[in-house]
Amino acid sequence: MIIVTAMKWAPPFAAGQVRDHRARWILNEVGWPYEVRLVDAPTMKSAEYCGALQPFGQLPVLQEDGRPPVFESGAIVLDVAMRAGRFIGAEGTPERAAALQWVIAGLNSLEPVLFNVAEVEYFMDDEEVKTARRPVVVRQAKERLSMLEHARAGRDWFVGDGFTVADLMLASILKIADRLSLLDELPALAAWHRSILARPAHVRAEEDQKAEIARHTPADMRYSELAQQEGA
Amino acid sequence: MIIVTAMKWAPPFAAGQVRDHRARWILNEVGWPYEVRLVDAPTMKSAEYCGALQPFGQLPVLQEDGRPPVFESGAIVLDVAMRAGRFIGAEGTPERAAALQWVIAGLNSLEPVLFNVAEVEYFMDDEEVKTARRPVVVRQAKERLSMLEHARAGRDWFVGDGFTVADLMLASILKIADRLSLLDELPALAAWHRSILARPAHVRAEEDQKAEIARHTPADMRYSELAQQEGA
Ligand SMILES: N[C@@H](CCC(=O)N[C@@H](CS)C(=O)NCC(=O)O)C(=O)O
Ligand SMILES: N[C@@H](CCC(=O)N[C@@H](CS)C(=O)NCC(=O)O)C(=O)O
Repeated sequence: MIIVTAMKWAPPFAAGQVRDHRARWILNEVGWPYEVRLVDAPTMKSAEYCGALQPFGQLPVLQEDGRPPVFESGAIVLDVAMRAGRFIGAEGTPERAAALQWVIAGLNSLEPVLFNVAEVEYFMDDEEVKTARRPVVVRQAKERLSMLEHARAGRDWFVGDGFTVADLMLASILKIADRLSLLDELPALAAWHRSILARPAHVRAEEDQKAEIARHTPADMRYSELAQQEGA
Repeated sequence: MIIVTAMKWAPPFAAGQVRDHRARWILNEVGWPYEVRLVDAPTMKSAEYCGALQPFGQLPVLQEDGRPPVFESGAIVLDVAMRAGRFIGAEGTPERAAALQWVIAGLNSLEPVLFNVAEVEYFMDDEEVKTARRPVVVRQAKERLSMLEHARAGRDWFVGDGFTVADLMLASILKIADRLSLLDELPALAAWHRSILARPAHVRAEEDQKAEIARHTPADMRYSELAQQEGA
């Protein structure tokens, strides 16, 4: 039995983007059934959760009978794909190296740059600081994204001639860019993005996440209010 | 023949930290000989380099006869360890999952938070913005680091009972923290850090990098001046 830890509630802008969708997506791709355990902020920040499941008080975590839990959405995706022997090339091959390269490019070279923009738009209060920082981080993000599009060079897949974890991770990370309107000037990359997100395994992951969040989140509440209410 | 792309020059604060040390370190650990190709800023930003080697105009890149080049220091470390069958657990085992988990925790949960502090200290000019941002990013970084120390729980190794890529990556990333004095209040983590960096494979990687940089960088020149001089 596999259990994926997911968010009980989230602010509207995050529904569909919470990182447990990556675990759901890869599990749907390989066809491994799983259950979802919904947690709220106080649970995630508890000593018990941090000690046993996720040292940084975050999610997702993948739990499975007879195996230690695994955190980091990136590691969950790689581990499931390797164990299923799908979407990641065989150990030792150039395809494996390329898949690792693009997954890590997403996590280390792309996501932090996009997160800088998300920070400005969603998490900064001081208008003056925001105004000073926005052009800097937006320029960096757009530059990286256009380099990514250049590297894709019109291909349907980042590695070889089929879907891999590289496409999964990059498309997941590009959701952040899309939400921030950073793909508007990159129509080819945006079209590729839409084509990857249209995979049934992703559609189901996103819909399941959104449905659970909608059930537990008052529609017009802001993240900070929810956090306060839950005592986070 | 393996070739690692490394920096021809770097500012004093970066010598020993440039990410090609990760590629050198893992290659030294597994005992694979390699040569170094030094590049400067204009080369890294050239269309040729970005098109053939590293789409974001950065380094390191690992080139090897008969295989496509691999970029992302994280991917190079994982790929070399997997191919050598050392320091990363066997495919499908819990040790493999744990190694991936900690490498990616370093790259996705720790390095970006540390880089926010480095940005304030090394790359921001506006004193007002710096003063406003410093306490926020320092607090976040210290919190993450103390969570990491809590998860280590006094163990010598992050995975199992020996050195793995998890220790390599986390110790490499903690160099950034150490340089920024963020380990001062975490003496146990700092001691662990020193013990991992004392491995001969790392010492050699760092010394080689420093020696090459020293040969090519005027001692008292600032990064921005060098960048201008080289036309970056
Ligand atoms: N690097 C981690 C990041 C996890 C992460 O940021 N999770 C968010 C949800 S998308 C979270 O748990 N946020 C709650 C918090 O940080 O308090 C991963 O990819 O798994
Ligand atoms: N995520 C990349 C980051 C590479 C990176 O930032 N490299 C730096 C040196 S440490 C670089 O090439 N800087 C030159 C530049 O960005 O112009 C990796 O880990 O390989």
